[in-house]
Amino acid sequence: MSEQSELARNQTASIIRTKIGEPILRQLQKGQVPELEILSRSMENVDFDENAKLLKLGSKKTTRRMSKLSEIRPFMQTVLIANSIIEAKREGQVVTLRDVYYANVSPMTGSSQKTLKSQEESNVIIQDLEVMTGLLREQMGIIADAKGSLVGPLTIKSRGDVIPCSKQGDGAWSIPSMVDDVEFLDTSAKFVLVIEKGTAFQRLNYGRWWKKHNAIMVEGGGQPDRGTRRMVKRLNEELGLPVFVCCDADPYGWHIYSVYRFGSMSLAYTFEMLACPKARFIGISASDIYKYRIPKEGLLKAEKADLKRAEDMLKYPWFKDEFWQKELKLFLRRQQKSEIEALSRHSYKFLAETYLPDKLREHGVL
Amino acid sequence: MSEQSELARNQTASIIRTKIGEPILRQLQKGQVPELEILSRSMENVDFDENAKLLKLGSKKTTRRMSKLSEIRPFMQTVLIANSIIEAKREGQVVTLRDVYYANVSPMTGSSQKTLKSQEESNVIIQDLEVMTGLLREQMGIIADAKGSLVGPLTIKSRGDVIPCSKQGDGAWSIPSMVDDVEFLDTSAKFVLVIEKGTAFQRLNYGRWWKKHNAIMVEGGGQPDRGTRRMVKRLNEELGLPVFVCCDADPYGWHIYSVYRFGSMSLAYTFEMLACPKARFIGISASDIYKYRIPKEGLLKAEKADLKRAEDMLKYPWFKDEFWQKELKLFLRRQQKSEIEALSRHSYKFLAETYLPDKLREHGVL
Repeated sequence: MSEQSELARNQTASIIRTKIGEPILRQLQKGQVPELEILSRSMENVDFDENAKLLKLGSKKTTRRMSKLSEIRPFMQTVLIANSIIEAKREGQVVTLRDVYYANVSPMTGSSQKTLKSQEESNVIIQDLEVMTGLLREQMGIIADAKGSLVGPLTIKSRGDVIPCSKQGDGAWSIPSMVDDVEFLDTSAKFVLVIEKGTAFQRLNYGRWWKKHNAIMVEGGGQPDRGTRRMVKRLNEELGLPVFVCCDADPYGWHIYSVYRFGSMSLAYTFEMLACPKARFIGISASDIYKYRIPKEGLLKAEKADLKRAEDMLKYPWFKDEFWQKELKLFLRRQQKSEIEALSRHSYKFLAETYLPDKLREHGVL
Repeated sequence: MSEQSELARNQTASIIRTKIGEPILRQLQKGQVPELEILSRSMENVDFDENAKLLKLGSKKTTRRMSKLSEIRPFMQTVLIANSIIEAKREGQVVTLRDVYYANVSPMTGSSQKTLKSQEESNVIIQDLEVMTGLLREQMGIIADAKGSLVGPLTIKSRGDVIPCSKQGDGAWSIPSMVDDVEFLDTSAKFVLVIEKGTAFQRLNYGRWWKKHNAIMVEGGGQPDRGTRRMVKRLNEELGLPVFVCCDADPYGWHIYSVYRFGSMSLAYTFEMLACPKARFIGISASDIYKYRIPKEGLLKAEKADLKRAEDMLKYPWFKDEFWQKELKLFLRRQQKSEIEALSRHSYKFLAETYLPDKLREHGVL
């Protein structure tokens, strides 16, 4: 169990009390109109550390005051939702963003006063609470859809159950939204392979690829949910396993890699908890399309949205290195994309027996 | 392991040979121009058996002749793809619809002759092959995205691994695309709860709802994939467990229930393998919205697409009974929908401790 998780599990309520409830109480006791300070999540307060290749929230703060008419509403929302989270904990319930919205939409059933105009409002407040407490919402007991799966030579412990992830048959262990409680008991794996597509994961699992290569395999159902990202990060940092990400040869696939590695600017404060800056990309890159001679039948014409996304990516601070600038420009010039499945044009075995071993040898893990 | 699966696992190649290869060979040996007969999958050949409440393919056949110019192309596609499936089996590979397309798109790499204009063409041929062989494509080794999960007091065997589905921690066993190889070893469950939403599944799993009520819980990630459907059917038919489906209170949720129970008209031939005609609906129905007094903050205005879908559903043969006609008309009159999460307006525990136990008591399993 990670230290962070131990903390979260036992102390969410007390952290919320310490960081939110008590400051308000102290101000009230002094006869002050209460206010809350929150690190700003606006783009101007997000820095990219070029050397460490990581996103950081700056030190700019915003204040939420009961004394200012326009701030009363978010102030009240913050306090009510913080309280609702403590209540769920007390009831032993985990909840979703949507549950929190419904539970807090108005002060009383049928009241014409609305606490929340839409779920957008409660979502933003929960982001504020994450920044204020330093806890992920999952650690506060707020879950989201979980789409990830894991298989390989790793034994974990979750809620008292010992789970051998190498004994899941043709299935896998589905990664829950909250993974901080998961304890890593034992592994003989040498690395982690993250594969964009669930079908490719299933194909490799069917062939026991992970057994042959002594790897943990993870898939996140395309764009990964936060539970999958946190799990990959923990495998990398706590077990010291190198992580390799394999995606489709298109800007959407490359974006998925960047989500595992960096996350998104708009949620920069989650970087420390969710991003895996050591994750490495093993294609399929634009140049791999030609290097691995994917035949023209396996190529798709880039669509407008692809070109737009690639143009945007050229400007992302984390794609400013030589490799990505060259790859993105090659893509924009050739305007061709491809998919993992197109490797089957060579043979059904090509992905498992040629492409992946090749790439992993290049990175020195095979 | 189901009888069907044993058959499929060992005999896919020989079934394809017997049903497709050998008839062609015999015709050629007799000096005839070969042809293939396929049960028609057109709507006119789909019957709904009112009493048994099941979809059936009629006996109308279409012929695919080498002697007719317009039929040469699909004839050739059928033979090539059948061969490609046998090849994948021989290589020990499972493949996706997309892999099959890429592998067969043209006779030679770079050839200007195209075997397949688009994946749509190979998908249709694979449907033909399912009808001709009586095998699901999964049984032929063609997988699709798998999104389902399962948890509860059930021990299974898959690829030699014994998997206790009650020992998966906060996760679950992810259901693969091919579930025919899964053997049911032991269960103490009294029923199966299928829940539309992954987040509701996680919430109930976190609270060990399945343990308290001695149930197997399944979720299919919204609209279920075929692996999840086949698994639910097998749990019902092979273990004799009653199946209950819980969905959002909107036409999309009700449609999901109908997919578990009936499947779709356009794939009527899969009915026997995938549909679970004994699955029962435990809401949330249109009348449940009012019966369980979901407050107005938990109601959403029906959108045009919802109304259109409900109008269509009124005409489906399997929604012709009194219950569904009444429910759909109520929905169309009130034009209000809701979601499982809206029950949290009452309390975060309401779904687990009030709604589901209530409904299951009504059906006599609690």
